[in-house]
Amino acid sequence: MKIGLLGHGVVGSGVTKITDSCKVKKVRRLEVTRILVKDESEMTDQRCTMDVEDILSDPEIEVVAECMGGVEPAHTFCARALEAGKHVVTSNKKMFAEYARELLELAKENSVSVRYEASCGGGIPWMSNLERIGRLEQVNGFRGIFNGTTNYIISRMEETGAGFEESLAQAQSLGYAERDPSDDIDGFDVRYKTTLSALKAFSIYVKPSEIPVYGIRGIRPEDFVYAKKNHLAIRLFGTGQLYSDCAELWVMPVMITDMDVFADVRSNFNALESSSATLGRAVFIGQGAGSLPTAHAVVQDLLDIYQGQDSLIPELRRIPVNNDVTPMRFYIRTEKPEFFAGISESVEGNVILTKEITVAKMDDMMKACGDESAFAAVVMK
Amino acid sequence: MKIGLLGHGVVGSGVTKITDSCKVKKVRRLEVTRILVKDESEMTDQRCTMDVEDILSDPEIEVVAECMGGVEPAHTFCARALEAGKHVVTSNKKMFAEYARELLELAKENSVSVRYEASCGGGIPWMSNLERIGRLEQVNGFRGIFNGTTNYIISRMEETGAGFEESLAQAQSLGYAERDPSDDIDGFDVRYKTTLSALKAFSIYVKPSEIPVYGIRGIRPEDFVYAKKNHLAIRLFGTGQLYSDCAELWVMPVMITDMDVFADVRSNFNALESSSATLGRAVFIGQGAGSLPTAHAVVQDLLDIYQGQDSLIPELRRIPVNNDVTPMRFYIRTEKPEFFAGISESVEGNVILTKEITVAKMDDMMKACGDESAFAAVVMK
Repeated sequence: MKIGLLGHGVVGSGVTKITDSCKVKKVRRLEVTRILVKDESEMTDQRCTMDVEDILSDPEIEVVAECMGGVEPAHTFCARALEAGKHVVTSNKKMFAEYARELLELAKENSVSVRYEASCGGGIPWMSNLERIGRLEQVNGFRGIFNGTTNYIISRMEETGAGFEESLAQAQSLGYAERDPSDDIDGFDVRYKTTLSALKAFSIYVKPSEIPVYGIRGIRPEDFVYAKKNHLAIRLFGTGQLYSDCAELWVMPVMITDMDVFADVRSNFNALESSSATLGRAVFIGQGAGSLPTAHAVVQDLLDIYQGQDSLIPELRRIPVNNDVTPMRFYIRTEKPEFFAGISESVEGNVILTKEITVAKMDDMMKACGDESAFAAVVMK
Repeated sequence: MKIGLLGHGVVGSGVTKITDSCKVKKVRRLEVTRILVKDESEMTDQRCTMDVEDILSDPEIEVVAECMGGVEPAHTFCARALEAGKHVVTSNKKMFAEYARELLELAKENSVSVRYEASCGGGIPWMSNLERIGRLEQVNGFRGIFNGTTNYIISRMEETGAGFEESLAQAQSLGYAERDPSDDIDGFDVRYKTTLSALKAFSIYVKPSEIPVYGIRGIRPEDFVYAKKNHLAIRLFGTGQLYSDCAELWVMPVMITDMDVFADVRSNFNALESSSATLGRAVFIGQGAGSLPTAHAVVQDLLDIYQGQDSLIPELRRIPVNNDVTPMRFYIRTEKPEFFAGISESVEGNVILTKEITVAKMDDMMKACGDESAFAAVVMK
């Protein structure tokens, strides 16, 4: 099976490393014949080209593996590949979270498939396990640690008592965080992955912008002091819960009991949990990023296409997002505690523990409050 | 696809519960047409029979799902089903661990498949994920908590300081432990699962009796006192490591740092980890037993057969077991500490911390020592 690879950076170079050297017979049948690179400095191989037409117009190429990152031109190239009757595999969460509906429709029209295992949880076989559970029963919930950068920052602050800025700088120096860290620390990366998990688990497409998002930019050492005192650990979660007539989806820090498995997921690991009727809770833990683990996921998708598995694009259901269903307690640290008097159960200095309210209600209050330094977390006991 | 079900106890009744009521189209094509029950009291359904010939001689039945437990007659029935050209799915770890080589050969001769997801880790998709990783690269190691009963006992002793006998009685009263608990507490159950994991992960067949096994019968509250003082948690592990010319396999309690994910796997949950070159460490956590999770795994195997996936029986490799490779430190609590003087690094009362020695060496010493009340654990720091 001939493959055109778009992008030869961290993930793309991992893909050729695996496909070029693998001794397993099936994998040897995956042949990367062309590689789109961005400039002369990357033209390291006879297969490299700077002209995407060499891939999109090559009738021998059956699959395009997109590992470029960024929204454009990745989106346009994927759309054109599908229109040309080529299968698409992507590791690009941001692009696919924005354009999943369009690209899935295009795939359906052209009787090809789109797979996106690597877009979510790096090497963790998350999408394939959601698919596997889903062929037997409805997955009705998911939650977990979807972002290694923030998990590194949080677990470092938790273990060393260090401040946020210092821990972020450390993550940057280790290459875990970008120079502009907003996508990670403001929760947008988790939001893309929440969109993609809901797509696979619930067969619904929810725009990232419809999902309430709270990140860790405002987190301070004193939040860990509070958590420890109460035998809690702080983690950044993406979650989804399916009901018969709506789905609840949000991204937010959570305080979980320090006896929880998620509390022992540290550094840049990811941990993702699914819930369904007969299997119950199943947790998948692994490296959420990195060249080879992520490339492993891309190659697994290529193998699925090669073996003709699950190429069916499911019908998307029309179920609205509604975050006004499940009441929970929130920890809010704010300069304006008096603003939250109506929903407070207890106040200690600038820390509020709320009564049981929904995410929708909490989100309204936080926006109305206007305290940009506030930090909020769901308390799960 | 017509299925004959052998056994209608905890797992078997879970299977009919799922297949009879499931609304998913693919699962509705799985039709349990006959059920072998053991006596009149179980003849609750028109499909029930007490004569296995009604299943083995029925040409319409393509698959036999064996959920009887016990070695005989389960083994004979499975062999006869394969000889009759029927696929076999089994949840029976003890029988399959003993007879895997024979049954896989029979399957090969008759061009049918044998699947055993439910035999190991209950509902956790362990075998299918080992298969999935293995289609891309060699899984070179596995380890984890394979037994929920002992994990319940250990985590209860850890949390409450209770004694072993009392915790075992509690596990029995909750239905987690058998009246004769030897298979669980002496590690034999984990040994079967270690055989089956090595079979799937490494394509080798190792008789359970070849795997050194240490259980938790001798565990005492003082072992937890030692562990806590050293920020360690105790768990019972089954492990396998593949080398180019041998495989190291053992079952033994381990002391791991209390920051480890396994330390937060409590009660009757299982947690299984695989290692491979590009994916790295991947951990799978879920319910290791129970009617519906285990039945879920049986039905997943049935779906794999229905979809014609991975029916290939791999060639088994001839690689010997050798536990004289990796040196490790052991915690040994014994009435005869002087016996271990030659391998001791430190001694405190009746507790020895050994120098780095191999499992083979430690096993020789423990057997020669003759202290049946001794308790041993690998210290993994």
